[in-house]
Amino acid sequence: MSSIFSKIISGEIPSYKIAEDDKHIAFLDAMPLVKGHTLVVPKKETDLIFDLESEDYKELWAFTQDIAKQIKKAIQCKRVGVAVVGLEVPHAHIHLIPLNNVDEMNFKNIRLILSPEEYKEIQESIINA
Amino acid sequence: MSSIFSKIISGEIPSYKIAEDDKHIAFLDAMPLVKGHTLVVPKKETDLIFDLESEDYKELWAFTQDIAKQIKKAIQCKRVGVAVVGLEVPHAHIHLIPLNNVDEMNFKNIRLILSPEEYKEIQESIINA
Repeated sequence: MSSIFSKIISGEIPSYKIAEDDKHIAFLDAMPLVKGHTLVVPKKETDLIFDLESEDYKELWAFTQDIAKQIKKAIQCKRVGVAVVGLEVPHAHIHLIPLNNVDEMNFKNIRLILSPEEYKEIQESIINA
Repeated sequence: MSSIFSKIISGEIPSYKIAEDDKHIAFLDAMPLVKGHTLVVPKKETDLIFDLESEDYKELWAFTQDIAKQIKKAIQCKRVGVAVVGLEVPHAHIHLIPLNNVDEMNFKNIRLILSPEEYKEIQESIINA
């Protein structure tokens, strides 16, 4: 069975996409910890990020660097935090989380539920950054 | 003033070192969230990880991949998590945290205080992995 991220990549599940190339996709987390919380995902399904082939792994982080810079420009924050946890979805993914304090990177926090208009506004601000 | 990490790199502050090359160092977090919690640091002081020059940034993540694989072999865990926060020390650093559940990556958790013997045992197990 393909992962929820593969369904987002194929378009079967809709997402607020930030960027995409032949090997990677970035889209807004549907249940963000803070506004601008974005997921970066390699298209090839691999459970553990550190099991990616060395070149694929470096390309994923290079793609992530560009997205993080866009988020930093678009979203008011002290810095863009990074988290890789992956205990829930066995398809490697990087969380990019605009941070103003360390509490915002607590995955036990209640997630935000935004309106479609809010997601679209955030999506456009990051894409245009 | 040099950062606490630069003082660790220079040896002014002791650490339980895991690995080092000309551009990077990895050592055990002195106040770990869990046993095996390791910091990976570029020797050049840069505040934001995403501000690193593209090649330096990719090399840092490549070095991190090797360390994470060693931690995964040495420490019983489901996976090695990654966090970049950096609100406290303005010298880019990557946390590698052996995870069995998502609660273990909460930076508000009480940190472990281990004995020198425990740090040494963990250090040797990761180095020898």
